[in-house]
Amino acid sequence: MGEPLYLEDLHVGQKFTSAPERITEGEILEFARQFDPQPFHLDHEAAKATIFGGLAASGWHTAAFTMRLNIATGPKFAGGIIGGGGELRWPVPTRPGDMLHAEYEILEIIPSRSRPERGMIVLLTETKNQDGEVVQISRMKLVVQRRAGG
Amino acid sequence: MGEPLYLEDLHVGQKFTSAPERITEGEILEFARQFDPQPFHLDHEAAKATIFGGLAASGWHTAAFTMRLNIATGPKFAGGIIGGGGELRWPVPTRPGDMLHAEYEILEIIPSRSRPERGMIVLLTETKNQDGEVVQISRMKLVVQRRAGG
Repeated sequence: MGEPLYLEDLHVGQKFTSAPERITEGEILEFARQFDPQPFHLDHEAAKATIFGGLAASGWHTAAFTMRLNIATGPKFAGGIIGGGGELRWPVPTRPGDMLHAEYEILEIIPSRSRPERGMIVLLTETKNQDGEVVQISRMKLVVQRRAGG
Repeated sequence: MGEPLYLEDLHVGQKFTSAPERITEGEILEFARQFDPQPFHLDHEAAKATIFGGLAASGWHTAAFTMRLNIATGPKFAGGIIGGGGELRWPVPTRPGDMLHAEYEILEIIPSRSRPERGMIVLLTETKNQDGEVVQISRMKLVVQRRAGG
């Protein structure tokens, strides 16, 4: 765990890595049924004839799973992980049984002029599978707290 | 339902609207437990003292819920809704009991040079609550099929 990281503890180029976690076929099917019920996320046979060539996780499942990694073993920013938005791409599909981990790099640090108690960072997050392929790349703005009285 | 929409059926500026659907407190808590276990997504009391000022859905839940609206009552693109990535923002939090719907506009149509059987579109999607507030705005690239022999 360690102490939470405040804005003053961060620098551009700082890197972090999460622990790996497996995404199961059951989880992929369950997420798809609930949020993204399309043949390539629901059924092996039907998925073969599609652009994915086989069963693949919804991109939104890869995004949610990455959030789980962030909270479980990613960097512990003070105040939590609060995203305002950013960019997101899925270069390679997530497949059943993939062992995923996330690699993080701080790209920017932006102190707030109007809110001295916090600032923003731009965080690059690459979610990778067991072969090192990037299944998701995101550049997100996050709110990070400054130390009180800083 | 209607016929699926092929690339040739689409034009820049074309708009669509999904039906509204309610996001419940139970769903918000369940999603948070699984993917984004932070106090402001898990607990009313703890959420009051945070930047959200009360219980809020994970942004990734708003994203996944929007995908559900897309599939249920959004535009039926031929080949399904296959996103390559794009931009995403959450201007206002999603709250328990919100009635969410999505409004869509086609911003760009990009035929593929190398793959004559398909092309890309850039789709703007605004997810709105019952008060018309935008809880999520996304600009995503999607793959859309052309008619065979087109």
